[in-house]
Amino acid sequence: MQDRPSIPIGCLYGIGLGPGDPELVTVKASRLLAKLPHLFAPKADQVSLSIAKSIAAHHVGANVQFHETVYPMTRDPNVLRDSWRKAAAPVVAVLERGQDAGFITLGDPMLYSTFSYLMRAVRELLPNARVEIVPAVMSFAASAALTEFVLGEQKTQLTVAPAPDTEAGMSALIAQGGRLVMMKVGSRLPQLVDWLRASGHLAQTRLVVRAGLSGQRVITDLSRCDELDKVGYLSTLLVDLEPGEAL
Amino acid sequence: MQDRPSIPIGCLYGIGLGPGDPELVTVKASRLLAKLPHLFAPKADQVSLSIAKSIAAHHVGANVQFHETVYPMTRDPNVLRDSWRKAAAPVVAVLERGQDAGFITLGDPMLYSTFSYLMRAVRELLPNARVEIVPAVMSFAASAALTEFVLGEQKTQLTVAPAPDTEAGMSALIAQGGRLVMMKVGSRLPQLVDWLRASGHLAQTRLVVRAGLSGQRVITDLSRCDELDKVGYLSTLLVDLEPGEAL
Repeated sequence: MQDRPSIPIGCLYGIGLGPGDPELVTVKASRLLAKLPHLFAPKADQVSLSIAKSIAAHHVGANVQFHETVYPMTRDPNVLRDSWRKAAAPVVAVLERGQDAGFITLGDPMLYSTFSYLMRAVRELLPNARVEIVPAVMSFAASAALTEFVLGEQKTQLTVAPAPDTEAGMSALIAQGGRLVMMKVGSRLPQLVDWLRASGHLAQTRLVVRAGLSGQRVITDLSRCDELDKVGYLSTLLVDLEPGEAL
Repeated sequence: MQDRPSIPIGCLYGIGLGPGDPELVTVKASRLLAKLPHLFAPKADQVSLSIAKSIAAHHVGANVQFHETVYPMTRDPNVLRDSWRKAAAPVVAVLERGQDAGFITLGDPMLYSTFSYLMRAVRELLPNARVEIVPAVMSFAASAALTEFVLGEQKTQLTVAPAPDTEAGMSALIAQGGRLVMMKVGSRLPQLVDWLRASGHLAQTRLVVRAGLSGQRVITDLSRCDELDKVGYLSTLLVDLEPGEAL
């Protein structure tokens, strides 16, 4: 009688889906989506979840199982840690059965994604977990492509940041020079536009809403744009802080 | 007898190839590479040119024609403008024959690529040129994936910059906080490492050389790394300026 052979644990893939267009998924992500039996998606909000699923749907196999991991909506570090362990448990269960699992995320898994939290929580529960991160097209790269906005040339610096909460925060970003990308714009857009007008940068600002998704809007003249308060969460502001420097 | 119908001009595609791994090309770039009859590649240096061609080779059609555009090696604005017009002329010739053309570039076409210069020069010669930019995985995203380096979380800012020339330049980048990515590291690596050691940030620094390419190296402890002067051009430094802030 033989011992039951130990099952090698599965691999957790952190898969970036890119900005929204299913064709802007990488060949590697498409291949993994087609073969992975279990895909986890963060249920941060219903909009992002349904977008991630609809992008992945162009690539997944027939027998894929989707799981939703609940994103903890608190800033208390202890509650967060517990919540992430709870979210990681079903992922760990799949890996321990020897199956691979994918965690899908809009954009890139290392930039403003919940994947880094999930990865840490999985490692806490399963220290020898194998993890592979599949990088992706960042959403601001799609916004830059649509507006022909040069993100960096020669010695120019690029700053990527969540939209600031205060005018002082905006001033600090502007002071850094180069090119500035502000993500997660959402309902604060009218306020951000006011600050950019006050600092004299509105003419060098582009706005892209839902790049590559249905309802995409590209706004190159924000001074003439109404209904700024109706722009959704998936919006990006691109500001050239040193116009006229290019060749 | 009929007039000869006018030929609609072709479309110029600026195609990002991503960081190096042919599987990290997007589905869209792969589709375009397979069908485009003419591909232009910048001959900035032989290394980048041959890498770009070898990535594209996994995707191109049988009858593709490769053209090399010579990158002007000067900072004189007038010489530069003339050189880019010269580089753009064969692209314009293809477009005027009604054929589409692709310009391939490592990484993303809008971040430290020569595509923006070529695009402007093509538009000067052919003002009604149609241009479509295909965004791509940025090389630093691949470096972050390999080192599990979180580029942004919550309110963290990400700064992307060419490696600075002076210690003052490095200090200014460090003062911005958040996460810092320095590209185009090359032969200045020993100097950069000295500055990072002096400012107390070496322990939070990762180095990735030739991410996704043959000869890839991932160095997570730069204090123990010798032969820093032999690291090549395609290297990226990733610095966490606020360690311990994460969950």
